[in-house]
Amino acid sequence: MPRAVILLSGGLDSATTLAVARRDGFDTYALSVDYGQRHRIELEKAKLVARSLGAVEHRTVALDLRAIGGSALTADVAVPKDRTADEMDRGIPVTYVPARNTILLGLALGYAETVGAFDLFIGANVLDYSGYPDCRPAFLEAFEALANHATKAGVEGTGRFRVHAPLIRLTKAEIIRLGISLGVEYSQTLSCYDPSPAGIPCGRCDSCLLRAKGFLEAAIRDE
Amino acid sequence: MPRAVILLSGGLDSATTLAVARRDGFDTYALSVDYGQRHRIELEKAKLVARSLGAVEHRTVALDLRAIGGSALTADVAVPKDRTADEMDRGIPVTYVPARNTILLGLALGYAETVGAFDLFIGANVLDYSGYPDCRPAFLEAFEALANHATKAGVEGTGRFRVHAPLIRLTKAEIIRLGISLGVEYSQTLSCYDPSPAGIPCGRCDSCLLRAKGFLEAAIRDE
Repeated sequence: MPRAVILLSGGLDSATTLAVARRDGFDTYALSVDYGQRHRIELEKAKLVARSLGAVEHRTVALDLRAIGGSALTADVAVPKDRTADEMDRGIPVTYVPARNTILLGLALGYAETVGAFDLFIGANVLDYSGYPDCRPAFLEAFEALANHATKAGVEGTGRFRVHAPLIRLTKAEIIRLGISLGVEYSQTLSCYDPSPAGIPCGRCDSCLLRAKGFLEAAIRDE
Repeated sequence: MPRAVILLSGGLDSATTLAVARRDGFDTYALSVDYGQRHRIELEKAKLVARSLGAVEHRTVALDLRAIGGSALTADVAVPKDRTADEMDRGIPVTYVPARNTILLGLALGYAETVGAFDLFIGANVLDYSGYPDCRPAFLEAFEALANHATKAGVEGTGRFRVHAPLIRLTKAEIIRLGISLGVEYSQTLSCYDPSPAGIPCGRCDSCLLRAKGFLEAAIRDE
């Protein structure tokens, strides 16, 4: 079976993305990145998710983005709470991590070259993260073009890299229904920018609010 | 003065690149990456170089690429020694690190966003590293296109990122002469893929051989 690398954070979207890659007939190689995020307890969840969705391999790379800073997720900036949908739609939030998806996809590309994969999966979504520049189709297309200049296989013409973002235009409720149809156990995932040290979601950050709204709209209990 | 981020390994090429960025009128922000390379003692050299070439700031980011492997520089694969120029020209060497420059430029881009820089400098060169896909102009152009989709400023249209590779078509001898004219102290640099723990170059890897040939052709002593 062809191989695919999936960026797996341990959150709801990336777990669903892993399930989609498996559905699409790939042997799945999951990659998590410990970049110093506040919510790194997600990484524990990623292990559970990779195991229960049958990933062939799951690697975690340590990268200390706190040395660069610039984001509420990695620096000493407060995570915004209790924002309305309108407020979330306004501009790029402070939880944006500079160049994050460029870096994460770069790592996924390196891992793909090492294991002989040509397909990269990312749980990017334009609806919930409309403010993040690096969740948009134009960004993902530019990365795909880059990947084919950046690598042995791309330059030697022995393979063509593709970036897949199967959730890109789905609502959170649609993502949840899709994941449940593919056997994702969402109780194994965590979607919070600012969880307690024990991994209890704050319930008030953008990510918690979007998750709650998604389960409500899908008429499914988040448990 | 405008700000620029310079990828600084501690080797000869990146030191020269830093000096060029300064000559071109930028306040320089140097970024080194400890990616688990065998030759990480270079990072000590990077500190000296950044200081003596007047960098405003020098940060080092830790990224454990050994978790991905796939290269003689980060995995347990021997560094080739005593290769002739012909042998070096043949294909992509085992010292190629999968997707390395994609990842390094991604980190430089994140740093640039954080400090408000729009110019990224990298010491890529097509002559000495003809085998590395991610040292070619087409790769650097693709990264520049990506950067303008990947970032706040790119999407909001408040600035345009540029990737500079001022050494791209210079011979090693030309690079050395340029650096000396700009005050680079090459005794502070190290160009070896496999130095001793004390930082003594092996004298036999591709990087050592190219450096020696460059100083010879420039008729300058490497001291």
